[in-house]
Amino acid sequence: MKARFKPAERRRFWERALQGPIAELVFSGRDAEARQALQSALEDTRLAFSGGEVSLVGAGPGDPDLLTFRALRLMQQADVVVYDRLVSQPVLDLVRLEAERIYAGKERAKHTLPQEDINHLLVRLAREGKRVVRLKGGDPFIFGRGGEEIETLAAEGIPFQVVPGITAAAGCASYAGIPLTHRDYAQSVVFVTGHMQDGSMNLNWRALAQPRQTIVFYMGLVGIDILCRELTAHGLPAATPAALVQAGTTPQQRVLTGTLESLPGIVHDGGVKAPTLIIIGEVVTLRDRLKWFEPAA
Amino acid sequence: MKARFKPAERRRFWERALQGPIAELVFSGRDAEARQALQSALEDTRLAFSGGEVSLVGAGPGDPDLLTFRALRLMQQADVVVYDRLVSQPVLDLVRLEAERIYAGKERAKHTLPQEDINHLLVRLAREGKRVVRLKGGDPFIFGRGGEEIETLAAEGIPFQVVPGITAAAGCASYAGIPLTHRDYAQSVVFVTGHMQDGSMNLNWRALAQPRQTIVFYMGLVGIDILCRELTAHGLPAATPAALVQAGTTPQQRVLTGTLESLPGIVHDGGVKAPTLIIIGEVVTLRDRLKWFEPAA
Repeated sequence: MKARFKPAERRRFWERALQGPIAELVFSGRDAEARQALQSALEDTRLAFSGGEVSLVGAGPGDPDLLTFRALRLMQQADVVVYDRLVSQPVLDLVRLEAERIYAGKERAKHTLPQEDINHLLVRLAREGKRVVRLKGGDPFIFGRGGEEIETLAAEGIPFQVVPGITAAAGCASYAGIPLTHRDYAQSVVFVTGHMQDGSMNLNWRALAQPRQTIVFYMGLVGIDILCRELTAHGLPAATPAALVQAGTTPQQRVLTGTLESLPGIVHDGGVKAPTLIIIGEVVTLRDRLKWFEPAA
Repeated sequence: MKARFKPAERRRFWERALQGPIAELVFSGRDAEARQALQSALEDTRLAFSGGEVSLVGAGPGDPDLLTFRALRLMQQADVVVYDRLVSQPVLDLVRLEAERIYAGKERAKHTLPQEDINHLLVRLAREGKRVVRLKGGDPFIFGRGGEEIETLAAEGIPFQVVPGITAAAGCASYAGIPLTHRDYAQSVVFVTGHMQDGSMNLNWRALAQPRQTIVFYMGLVGIDILCRELTAHGLPAATPAALVQAGTTPQQRVLTGTLESLPGIVHDGGVKAPTLIIIGEVVTLRDRLKWFEPAA
């Protein structure tokens, strides 16, 4: 599949392929016919190619089974894939074999490539006429700095699209049996990053520490002492239930529950490692009844 | 595909099918071999069948291309699908043809089936030995009352699983070009329901009305006057940018932007209809540069 489309053409192509008769053929098991129909749709659309483009794609929380169709398709068409540390290996294994892979890093405090370099790398690759997939763990618009990357693309006039992914909060919540909202326990859910700057977290703790609100911390492990202390200091009971979801949705998933008071000890004693999502609120108590995913690992 | 598995068997089957050699065959275009391998994996797992089960599945925001692989697979295996109003027609069209479809409604203020009836319907169907898919718009654990439905299942000892979906906030944000978090504008994002009870919204407005926080209202259209007024009364500037995303991610997507001050007028004058997501915060200003999805419709 070497055809390259403008975004509009590509959209038409896939609309035709997925929402029309080709999908029907696939679903009714007529694979050969489907493949032939797909091929001829491809020929039809294989017109002028005007240049490269970038797809900012959410890779979801880890389980490759939670990729969207759009994400996998773009991964299978890519000339080059620029990926972060949080993209799981089973997801990466689904990238088109011939595609170039570029690791853009983003480990806490030691970015392999500075953000500005990533932004310009994407521009350069697209200018070379490549179909670029910028693959990010979770959802690109929720703590992914995806906005910054496409701002540069937009400024440089590079065509782009954005493909949402299952964000870690949704993936971990479902696989841990913890509803993020619930009529009896939480009428809102807030996502916040626990990323530290200069040894502290500059957050509005009072606004976070609300009854009937679930709080989800992304990247909160290093600052676990601070965040439990601050939430308690700003009004949440020390007995507020809390959960750690390590490697959520993967065969290595591990869920540990406790309270704001016990959580720091659990992290330190339990050898909890990133990536770990922290869920705080009464909804955590539901896990006892609602857990269903218990990988053997 | 009439085989019915226990959850653990099914999991093993799909792990084998999707993360192993079968996936490789599919992706390298060897469809006939893939189908044969799939069939034999199916035979291997087609062992004892102990009873029905329920999959609580997120159908995403509307674009069928945003379904996860796990979601579509379960839809294609279902004996019966119980769906809500917010599940889009193109998504429903991908349900297995032979599956029974039951509409469970959930229009604002006139639930077609009361929640308790839905809960017990799922139990009854599973007890009949059926593979039941409970299909919900967006993500089942974010304002889907999914927790309540599986609480009944858990209490009755029915096997279940939960499949996260792209929640409306993530889907609409990506397709409207509005990052939900951004280093320069928002360090947190809060999802809240604007659903009214007795003509008012019982929310903690002060906690919502924070600088550097994006607020996403689900089902906020009817209460638009109240929510704009309360957020302003509790400290957000009247000029705070806000967006309405109607039918987000679909060919009918329509995005209208304004401010907390102008939003009620825009809703009333613009004939804005549900489903519409409301995004409030400085990030909305990014749309001017980052919009990319402009359906012809």
